[in-house]
Amino acid sequence: MTTTATRTAGSTQQAYETLLKLARDAQQLHATLEIMHWDQEVKMPARGVEYRSKQIAQLARIHHEAATDKRIGELLSECESDSSLTSDPRSIEAVNIRELRRVYDRRTKLPTELIEEEARLSSVGQHTWARARKNSDFSEFKPMLKDIITLLRRKADCFGWAPGGEPWDALAEDYEPGCTAADVEKVFTPLRDRLVTLLNDLMGSSNPPSNAFNAKIIPIENQRQFVRFVAEAIGFDFDRGRIDISTHPFCSGTHCNDVRITTRFHENNVNDALGSTMHECGHGIYEQGLLEQHIGTPMGESVSLGIHESQSRMWENQVGRSQAFWKWCYPKMPEHLSGAVKDLSFDDVYGAVNIVKPDFIRVEADEATYNMHIMVRFEIERGIIAGDINVDDIPEVWNEKYKQYLNIDVPNDAKGCLQDIHWSMGSMGYFPTYTFGNLYAAQFFEKALDDMPDLYAQFEKGKFDALRTWLNENIHAHGQRYRAAELCEHVTGKPLSADPLLRHLEGKLRPIYGV
Amino acid sequence: MTTTATRTAGSTQQAYETLLKLARDAQQLHATLEIMHWDQEVKMPARGVEYRSKQIAQLARIHHEAATDKRIGELLSECESDSSLTSDPRSIEAVNIRELRRVYDRRTKLPTELIEEEARLSSVGQHTWARARKNSDFSEFKPMLKDIITLLRRKADCFGWAPGGEPWDALAEDYEPGCTAADVEKVFTPLRDRLVTLLNDLMGSSNPPSNAFNAKIIPIENQRQFVRFVAEAIGFDFDRGRIDISTHPFCSGTHCNDVRITTRFHENNVNDALGSTMHECGHGIYEQGLLEQHIGTPMGESVSLGIHESQSRMWENQVGRSQAFWKWCYPKMPEHLSGAVKDLSFDDVYGAVNIVKPDFIRVEADEATYNMHIMVRFEIERGIIAGDINVDDIPEVWNEKYKQYLNIDVPNDAKGCLQDIHWSMGSMGYFPTYTFGNLYAAQFFEKALDDMPDLYAQFEKGKFDALRTWLNENIHAHGQRYRAAELCEHVTGKPLSADPLLRHLEGKLRPIYGV
Repeated sequence: MTTTATRTAGSTQQAYETLLKLARDAQQLHATLEIMHWDQEVKMPARGVEYRSKQIAQLARIHHEAATDKRIGELLSECESDSSLTSDPRSIEAVNIRELRRVYDRRTKLPTELIEEEARLSSVGQHTWARARKNSDFSEFKPMLKDIITLLRRKADCFGWAPGGEPWDALAEDYEPGCTAADVEKVFTPLRDRLVTLLNDLMGSSNPPSNAFNAKIIPIENQRQFVRFVAEAIGFDFDRGRIDISTHPFCSGTHCNDVRITTRFHENNVNDALGSTMHECGHGIYEQGLLEQHIGTPMGESVSLGIHESQSRMWENQVGRSQAFWKWCYPKMPEHLSGAVKDLSFDDVYGAVNIVKPDFIRVEADEATYNMHIMVRFEIERGIIAGDINVDDIPEVWNEKYKQYLNIDVPNDAKGCLQDIHWSMGSMGYFPTYTFGNLYAAQFFEKALDDMPDLYAQFEKGKFDALRTWLNENIHAHGQRYRAAELCEHVTGKPLSADPLLRHLEGKLRPIYGV
Repeated sequence: MTTTATRTAGSTQQAYETLLKLARDAQQLHATLEIMHWDQEVKMPARGVEYRSKQIAQLARIHHEAATDKRIGELLSECESDSSLTSDPRSIEAVNIRELRRVYDRRTKLPTELIEEEARLSSVGQHTWARARKNSDFSEFKPMLKDIITLLRRKADCFGWAPGGEPWDALAEDYEPGCTAADVEKVFTPLRDRLVTLLNDLMGSSNPPSNAFNAKIIPIENQRQFVRFVAEAIGFDFDRGRIDISTHPFCSGTHCNDVRITTRFHENNVNDALGSTMHECGHGIYEQGLLEQHIGTPMGESVSLGIHESQSRMWENQVGRSQAFWKWCYPKMPEHLSGAVKDLSFDDVYGAVNIVKPDFIRVEADEATYNMHIMVRFEIERGIIAGDINVDDIPEVWNEKYKQYLNIDVPNDAKGCLQDIHWSMGSMGYFPTYTFGNLYAAQFFEKALDDMPDLYAQFEKGKFDALRTWLNENIHAHGQRYRAAELCEHVTGKPLSADPLLRHLEGKLRPIYGV
C-alpha cells in the first residue's frame, strides 16, 4: 500500500490538479447544501419551509451542474490514460480518479427527465406515505409505490449491473458501492438462522433483566448534561462539531472540521438519549477522523453507509452497551442524573440497556432484533425489484415474515409495512446498510480487541482514546482508498462474516439472560 | 398612488416576468448566503471558519454572476421602453424596474479587478485594524487606511455623483440611496447645536436619575426569559423567526418568513439585553412586515439602512424607554427577573434606562449622546474622501471634536478613532444611517401618535399591535416603493427634520433630569 502521492510530470499532473479543483468546488456546494438541510431540520422557523425548499432545489441544481461538468469527464479520461497516476491502485491519485469516475458516470448516466421525475415522485411519495401511515392503510400508498418501483427499475436499467447480478444491485450502489444482493444473502442467511435460535432462547429465560432504569423520570436538562459528558469522554470534538436536538437524530458532516450531530430526549428514557448520542457521536467521530488535506475529494470521504453505520454502532453497542463502559459510567450517574437513579444496582442498569424484546418498530428495536427488521425489508425489496413479489402482497408478506422471524403478529400497516419512510423516497437497497453496519462493527471491534487486549480495561477507566485512535488510523484516514469489502479484509484480514456479530450478541446476552 | 399592478399585454409583460424570475433567483442565492453568514456567527464550530470562508466566497461569486447576468440589463431596457409598465412611478412594476436598474447599474459599474481588490483590502483591513486597536496605535492602521481611501475614491469615480454633489455621495448610495452629504449636513447641523445645549443642561442637573437598576446582578436564564417575554409582547413572530445569542447583536432577514435576530447577556446589565433585544426585534418586525408576494423583488425589500434603523430605534427608544412601556413592564419584572429588582421603585427603573452620560464608545452610548458620535464620524469621513482632512490627522481631529461636542478627553486611539470596524471594511457613508434612523424614528412616531392618540395608553396595557400594524401598513408593506426621503414625506407629510427627535429627547430627558 502506498500512502504518499505518486508524482507524475507535465500535463497529466496538471489535468489531475484541475480535476481535483473541480471536484472540490462541486463538493463545496454540496457542503453548503448540507448546512441548509441541517438548518432546516434543527434551527429554521416553521414558516420558512416553502422558501427553503426553493433554495435547496436551486443549490442542488447548481451542484448537479458542477458535478456533471463535461470537463470532469475529459480530465478523468486524460488522467486514466496516464499509468503513472493509476498504476498503484491504492495511491491517492488512483483512488481519487477511480471514485470520481464512478460517481461521475452514475451522475451522467441518468437522463435529466428521470432525475426530475425522481425528485417529483420522492416529494409526492413522502407526502402520500405520511398520509397512508397516519390512516394505517397501505392501499392508499400502493399506487404511488408502484410508480416508484417502475421508476426504480428504469433507474437500475440506466445504471446496469454486473453479469450474474440483478437490478437491486444497481440501486444499492448508491449506498453500499460494490455490494450485491447475493453478497447480502450470503451473510444474512446464517445470521438469520442463528439469531432466530438466540431470540427463542432469550425469550424463554426465567430471569430476564429488570426494566427499572428505563422507567425512571429524569429531567431533560440533567440528561443533556449527562450525554454531553459522555460525548466529550468518548472524544467527539466540540471545537469541530456541535450537538443539537431533533426529532430523528442524525449526523451532518460537511467536512472534518464542522460535524454536526443531533440527539433527542424523553423524560422517561435516558437510555434512548444516551444510545442516540453515542450512535451519532460514532458517525461524527468518523467524519472528524477524515483527513483535512483531502477535504472535498474521495480520499477525504467516508466509504459507504455500511461502514459509516459500523462506526456509529460500535460506539453505541460494542462500547456503550458493554460491561466495561458501565463500570466507568455507572458510578458517574448520580452526579449527572439527579437522585432518580440512586436506588438502581449496576446489574439493573447494565441489564436494562441490554434488554431484548421482539417488537414491531425498527427504529425502537434492540441490538439483537434490529437485524431481523432489516432482513424482512431486504427480502421484500429485492423481491419487488426482481418482480418476484407483487406490490399488492407487501402487507401479507411483511406480516408473515414478522411472525416467522420475530414471532409477533403485526396489528396494522402503520406498525407494519408503512413504518419506514425509505421506499416512499425512492430508496431501495438502503436497508441492508444498517445490518452491514452491525456486522462490520463487530468484526472491526474483534480485531481492535485482538490488537489492544486491554481495551475493556481502558473503558473501565473512562479512557476511549486508544479505540478512537485505532479507528482513525485503520479506517478513517483511508477515506475511500478501499471499498467496504476490501477495507474489511485489509483491516481484519478476513472477508465479512456473520460470526463476529453472533459471537458478540451471544457472548453478551446469554449471560445477562442466564440462558 | 397605485398599489395594484398595471397590466400590459404581450412581449414586454413577458420580459418583465422573466426579469423578475432572474431577480428572484439571484436574491434566493443571496438569502442562502445570509444563512451561511448567520450560521457562521451563531452556530458554526470554531474550527469551521477556514472552509466556511471558501464556501461564502464561492456562493458570493455565483450570486454576483447571477445578479450581473447580461440578460437582466437587456430585459430592463426592454421594460423601460414600455411606458405602460413605468408610467405610474409608484406601480409595482415601475418600482421593481427602477430599483433593479439602480442595483444592476451599480453592480456592473465596478470592474472585476476593483471588486477583488476591495474584498482583499477589506479582509486585510479588518485584520490590521483589529491589531492596531488592540495596541491602541492608529499609526499601525494608517497605511492600510490610506490604501482603503484610495480605493474608495476610485470606487466613487466609477459610480459618479450628481452635479453639485461630492464623492462621499457616491459611496453613501450603498447604504442610504439618494442621500447626499449636503442632505446630512442640513439636518445634522441644527441637531448638533441643540444637542450640545441639551447635554450641557442635563450634565448640570443636581438631581440625576439613579443608576441602581443597572448595577443589579440578574441570572442570565432569567434575563433570557424576560426578553423573550417582551419580544413576544411587542409582536416579533417566532413562527417566522428566532432569537439567538451573539457577541454583537444583529438581524439577519433572508425573507419575511425566516427572520433571525440575536441578542446578548451580561449578568450585571439586563438593560443592555432588553435594549438590544427590542432594537433587533424592531429590525425583525420590519423584515417580517415585508410582503410575502414580493419576496425576492424590490417591492419586497427594505428601503435603506436609515429606514431599517428607524424601526429598530423606535422599538428600542420611543417604545422601550417610554414611561408608558415601563408602566406595563415594571410590575412584570419581579416574576421574570427574580428578587433582585424588588427594592427598585418605578422611578429608579425608568430613570436608569434613560441615563445620559457622555462617554467614548459609540456602541455603549445613550439615546442622546449617540448622535454626537455619529456626527464626529460623518464630518471626518466626508473630509477625508473630499481630501479636506488628511488621514494622518484623524486622531487629532477626532479628539478635538469629542472635546467640542461631548466635552470629554479621549484617552487613547482604542477608545477614540480606532473603536469602529466600519472604515477598515471599506465602509464610508454608512455611519449617518444610524442617526437617520433616530431622526426617522422620531418623525414617524410623532405621526403615529397623531394618528392614534391613545397609543401610550395602549402601551401601558401591554398592547403594541396598533403601532405594529401602523408600521406594517405605512412603512413595511411599501417595500422600496418610496426612497427614504420620499417615504418620510409620504408618511408624515413633511421632509425629514431634526425637530421631532429633539422634541422627543428634550420632552423626555428634561423632566427626568429636572432641568
